[in-house]
Amino acid sequence: MELRGLDDVFEAIRSLRVRGAPLIGVTAAMAVAALARQAESRTGEGVGGVPEGEGAATPAQVDGWCRHLETARPTAVNLGWALRRMRAVAEGVDGGLADALHAEAQAIWDEDAAMCRQIGEHGLTLLRRGARVHTHCNAGVLATGGMGTALAPLYLAHERGMDVSVFADETRPLLQGSRLTAWELDRAGISVTVVPDSAAPALFATDPPDAVFVGADRIAANGDVANKVGTYGLAVLAARHGVPFYVLAPTSTVDLETPSGGEIPIEYRDPDEVRRGFGPLTAPAHVPVYAPAFDVTPAELVTAIITERGVHPPPFGPALAVAAGPAP
Amino acid sequence: MELRGLDDVFEAIRSLRVRGAPLIGVTAAMAVAALARQAESRTGEGVGGVPEGEGAATPAQVDGWCRHLETARPTAVNLGWALRRMRAVAEGVDGGLADALHAEAQAIWDEDAAMCRQIGEHGLTLLRRGARVHTHCNAGVLATGGMGTALAPLYLAHERGMDVSVFADETRPLLQGSRLTAWELDRAGISVTVVPDSAAPALFATDPPDAVFVGADRIAANGDVANKVGTYGLAVLAARHGVPFYVLAPTSTVDLETPSGGEIPIEYRDPDEVRRGFGPLTAPAHVPVYAPAFDVTPAELVTAIITERGVHPPPFGPALAVAAGPAP
Repeated sequence: MELRGLDDVFEAIRSLRVRGAPLIGVTAAMAVAALARQAESRTGEGVGGVPEGEGAATPAQVDGWCRHLETARPTAVNLGWALRRMRAVAEGVDGGLADALHAEAQAIWDEDAAMCRQIGEHGLTLLRRGARVHTHCNAGVLATGGMGTALAPLYLAHERGMDVSVFADETRPLLQGSRLTAWELDRAGISVTVVPDSAAPALFATDPPDAVFVGADRIAANGDVANKVGTYGLAVLAARHGVPFYVLAPTSTVDLETPSGGEIPIEYRDPDEVRRGFGPLTAPAHVPVYAPAFDVTPAELVTAIITERGVHPPPFGPALAVAAGPAP
Repeated sequence: MELRGLDDVFEAIRSLRVRGAPLIGVTAAMAVAALARQAESRTGEGVGGVPEGEGAATPAQVDGWCRHLETARPTAVNLGWALRRMRAVAEGVDGGLADALHAEAQAIWDEDAAMCRQIGEHGLTLLRRGARVHTHCNAGVLATGGMGTALAPLYLAHERGMDVSVFADETRPLLQGSRLTAWELDRAGISVTVVPDSAAPALFATDPPDAVFVGADRIAANGDVANKVGTYGLAVLAARHGVPFYVLAPTSTVDLETPSGGEIPIEYRDPDEVRRGFGPLTAPAHVPVYAPAFDVTPAELVTAIITERGVHPPPFGPALAVAAGPAP
């Protein structure tokens, strides 16, 4: 997909054409770098009418782009985190703004890819040969700048011949599980079965998986987890059936400023994503729809949180404060 | 919809064009009566080539139709129950087969409508003014010969100005909740909100309903309940949030021959109902899909079973044996 300018990027993030908490951070950062580069190149065309220097981006412009992009989606913390890094660079740099922003955006991307692999390595320690893992939504290649978060251990397990298989919740309303997770795992040669969200409980009751692996859009300081709507139901189910429930996400997803899940802002989506999700109308057009994009899984239902720094068992508060706090 | 002959009726039941455990019983019984009437009318045309009497249905033919229709769907017990009544009439009657079968089918329908209203009256005792009730799939007018089972108390409450409102799970894959329940309640002037199956847990966590009302396709002798896939997940959720979970179904749904849920045969649906449920392909075409039509809710999660005979709290075994056993 080619995105031309700020409005295109904003719309791609808002409409979930680009989605996945880490990937929207990388995308927004790269967009800011590209916008600065675009402004600079217009400067070079000064001979063609624009006075030299006039097109170059200013720190104030960068700040404006960042503040606008931040509002595209309210729940994922990575978006704000990546854009704060970009703003800090714009404020601190002395000349060469576009180059500095590009370097920072590339660093965000590279760090994301490295973090994915580290999360994969830590998560892999939780899997045995032949493990069956249940997942929700998409926290894989299509959600990050690397091999994913929740799916990273599965890619590594597959690389190492461990013969794992995955059950992917369909994930209404936008079907990221069947459209993205099933697609990317199948393409990689990993055995995957699509499960309608409503059928996961039957599967847990008759043939429970070895573990649930999900990503996160925001993790509060106490370990409460906001993730794609449906995650909480899966956690309740996992607890009932004694299936360990793991959340895999980079430390950039941890928001130490948010004490608990109750303070995480939850985005509500357009009811027509449910009513006309596939074209034809599947509900009376004027009947209201309850359509949160996310739900909150309380920390008590989480077996462990896996970040690029390791496997963190409860209590999560102290571990997250260290893992996501300022570098020592 | 006009159904012409046995194959049409079989296909309408198999493909869920006619669905809802009570309604498929009524439909199959009426179909057998109509087939017998059709055969008889062909007799009348004896002068036109067919020797008089040759076209009249025989008990053996009726038996054959019934045995065939019974196989259209394996989980709902009402289908077999209604068809056994029709077979018993065919075996016992002395002449006037078509009239006798029609009378029996009409009796099945009338009894169903009366049972719905009785279930409604008993269920209504569980509701207060302004109650918010969560439901799954469709157990209303469109599933029965009357005002429904799970929805019957809501229709009565509305008739009596009790200002109830309903949250209807969308119910993947076939969306009976958004397409049928939301439609029929809205049409009746009852406030209804559509909830994607995956969002029900978020709703229970933030603003729990007063009760869950669901229907049943088969209730085992111990009170385990087979109903539309997703019901079990809702029961687990209701238990976690202290929301009473009620199953509303006629005693014809109780199968005393089936000791527990483990022995209820579960129908699996065509994976393409999930992959192409709305036309466009929403999962890789060759990726397997876990697609049970039903799940089993263990009796321990059921607050009470409501039949036309009353509200039955646990332990269910003795109450169901009396309610669904032979008349005293």
